[in-house]
Amino acid sequence: MGIVHKYRGNFEWDGVAVKEYVTGEAVGATRRVLIGAEESAQNFAVRYFEIPPGGVSALDNHAHDHGVFILRGRARVLLGNREVEVGHGDVVYIPPHETHQFRVIGDEPLGFICVVSGKRE
Amino acid sequence: MGIVHKYRGNFEWDGVAVKEYVTGEAVGATRRVLIGAEESAQNFAVRYFEIPPGGVSALDNHAHDHGVFILRGRARVLLGNREVEVGHGDVVYIPPHETHQFRVIGDEPLGFICVVSGKRE
Repeated sequence: MGIVHKYRGNFEWDGVAVKEYVTGEAVGATRRVLIGAEESAQNFAVRYFEIPPGGVSALDNHAHDHGVFILRGRARVLLGNREVEVGHGDVVYIPPHETHQFRVIGDEPLGFICVVSGKRE
Repeated sequence: MGIVHKYRGNFEWDGVAVKEYVTGEAVGATRRVLIGAEESAQNFAVRYFEIPPGGVSALDNHAHDHGVFILRGRARVLLGNREVEVGHGDVVYIPPHETHQFRVIGDEPLGFICVVSGKRE
């Protein structure tokens, strides 16, 4: 059955739990699964992550790819051996096996949607 | 290699072509593939669709599921046999084989991100 998570404002959604996001050096980072196993979605997942000012995500490199859409804040994103500054509305594609890391810059939390395959390991 | 599509504002992104979106009764609807085959993404695609005021998408029912995130405007969404009103920030999951249709309401275009599996038929 189709599912709607109404937006409450302030990056909260009805029916979506706020979970801790354990990553790198980012105390207080959070994770919200907007579409995933609880919605019976098997082919992909859509998550919202938030990392506080000063936070840095883990230096990651794995087989599954990421589709990222920045909703708030700014970051320097490491993609392989280059760094790109991103902010509101920017789209980032991180292919399989590319080293990546998000470094929050500025005073606002970094908030982004991250899409992954439902078949990731 | 990682790819960044910088947001230009006004729902346009660098390196993303605007294509016609042929659907239902919606003259002037558009489609932008933010992450897809051109980005070498094989596991999922992230697209941005826009339907002008008064437009109605095709009445669809198919095997692949959709993850939708509303960026602008308002719509009544048909999900199976119920209708839900959605707007900015709302998240909609449309499972496989659920009949669905978007009916734009109000004066603003409806703009939404739509995630699909890369393996859809």
